[in-house]
Amino acid sequence: MTAVKIVEVGPRDGLQNEQITLSVDTRAQLVRRLAASGIRTLEAGSFVRADKIPQMALSELVHEQIRDVPNLQTIWLTPNLRGMSDATTAGVTTTAVFIAASDEFNARNINASTEQGLANAKEVIEVARNQGILVRGYVSTIAGCPYQGEVPAAEVIELVRELIDAGCYEVSLGDTIGVGTPRKIRTLLQSISKEVDISKIAFHGHDTYGMGIANALAAIDCGVRTIDTSVGGLGGCPFAGPGAKGNTATEDLVYALGVDGFESEIDLDGLVATSWWLSSMTQHPPRSLVAHARK
Amino acid sequence: MTAVKIVEVGPRDGLQNEQITLSVDTRAQLVRRLAASGIRTLEAGSFVRADKIPQMALSELVHEQIRDVPNLQTIWLTPNLRGMSDATTAGVTTTAVFIAASDEFNARNINASTEQGLANAKEVIEVARNQGILVRGYVSTIAGCPYQGEVPAAEVIELVRELIDAGCYEVSLGDTIGVGTPRKIRTLLQSISKEVDISKIAFHGHDTYGMGIANALAAIDCGVRTIDTSVGGLGGCPFAGPGAKGNTATEDLVYALGVDGFESEIDLDGLVATSWWLSSMTQHPPRSLVAHARK
Repeated sequence: MTAVKIVEVGPRDGLQNEQITLSVDTRAQLVRRLAASGIRTLEAGSFVRADKIPQMALSELVHEQIRDVPNLQTIWLTPNLRGMSDATTAGVTTTAVFIAASDEFNARNINASTEQGLANAKEVIEVARNQGILVRGYVSTIAGCPYQGEVPAAEVIELVRELIDAGCYEVSLGDTIGVGTPRKIRTLLQSISKEVDISKIAFHGHDTYGMGIANALAAIDCGVRTIDTSVGGLGGCPFAGPGAKGNTATEDLVYALGVDGFESEIDLDGLVATSWWLSSMTQHPPRSLVAHARK
Repeated sequence: MTAVKIVEVGPRDGLQNEQITLSVDTRAQLVRRLAASGIRTLEAGSFVRADKIPQMALSELVHEQIRDVPNLQTIWLTPNLRGMSDATTAGVTTTAVFIAASDEFNARNINASTEQGLANAKEVIEVARNQGILVRGYVSTIAGCPYQGEVPAAEVIELVRELIDAGCYEVSLGDTIGVGTPRKIRTLLQSISKEVDISKIAFHGHDTYGMGIANALAAIDCGVRTIDTSVGGLGGCPFAGPGAKGNTATEDLVYALGVDGFESEIDLDGLVATSWWLSSMTQHPPRSLVAHARK
């Protein structure tokens, strides 16, 4: 069995959804702690308007503090050309763009049609690629949308193909509101693997209905080898509406994979310690059961 | 895909682990509510010493109140001949016996060796069978023990075979402390299915490390068609030591199976309503994420 790679999304997708904005120093410390626990790839921040998402303000200073952490790939969300320009100025080497597979979600979240959103993402990707910057793509609401309900698999597949063709090195499929079940995820991934190289696909699940680990394992069964998780189950999606609880917790997946004999160089105790350290600042306990069981 | 049968264990394994003892009327009402939501088999109580487990005191009165509920099989725990005698007097038609696969756990839990415990269980089974009473068997600590750590698979398999040979119509395998991972459960069940008829095996998981749903689905993948769960994730094992959190929640499994297209006649909204109704009496919120997402 090939090793499963974890992409830690707590410092961006996680913190972005917290009520309390953490300082640049604390955010950089979080990244260093995660790297010290063996995380090799993580979402570290985003280049967005500070008045819209204050939790991610001054991401360039976070980048400055962590750019020398060894053996760590950091990913920075750049939703538009302005963000990409700021990221480039900061010296970022990997960025990310996103698009929802739900028209209704795009209309409410980015105030654009799916077609416009995709065109925008492709423009950002092109600018990045021309400067040698890597781009990760996200397709969200793959298993359901809080506004339109069902999301057609064909729409998900089409967007994945478009993002890969445009130059994304990987596309992460997000069950943004956590409504998917293992069978639904399996069916979708089996369709996708007929159309695109599965080694370029990541899975990003949420634990709203307690399906996070089961869905991640279903994705792994389908050949996906990259899973997005968030330390302490931090996060969700601030625009995803009611019921969009936390991401699948990193420590829960590491527990599931570690004991299962997958290769893992991740220090579970270190992750749990970081989860509790963070909880004193976010002012709520971790949403990870492993964090509680191993406290 | 054959339908998955749920054995609801909240009214016994669940309530037995609650701090607050519910009245006979409330316990009977819980059973009726579960039956009304489509549960067809449930653990309803136990015939044990009231000074040891006050939460289960007066189970004979609960039985009296629910014996006429249609289309419902109720299971009553009878750990010894005294309990079996009381159950028989009450008119119970299905009972249950248990044994741990861990020597150390049996020493601390039933103050007997595994051999003595098994001999005792077989004696109870024989008395029951001679009166035409059905007996369910439980083998606990199948994936690990809080006292001795690893539990040999050979010991689990041997106990399963002994209980089936002694006349149990089904044996439920309990990951009592919830330490198992899907791969561990799969490996164990694959070994067991070579030795005994898998249709006689049930799986009983706990959610201590967030593996409850993933483990149940792994068991289903291995051919197990009966899963024990508890409404609201009630329960655990009072003797299982630190970290033994709740059972896998019934509503979480119904969510996982229902949307997956398994046959299910269970009313998810009804279960969630019962979960919240119960939480006002147990004085803590449900441990089910579906209960929270669907509130």
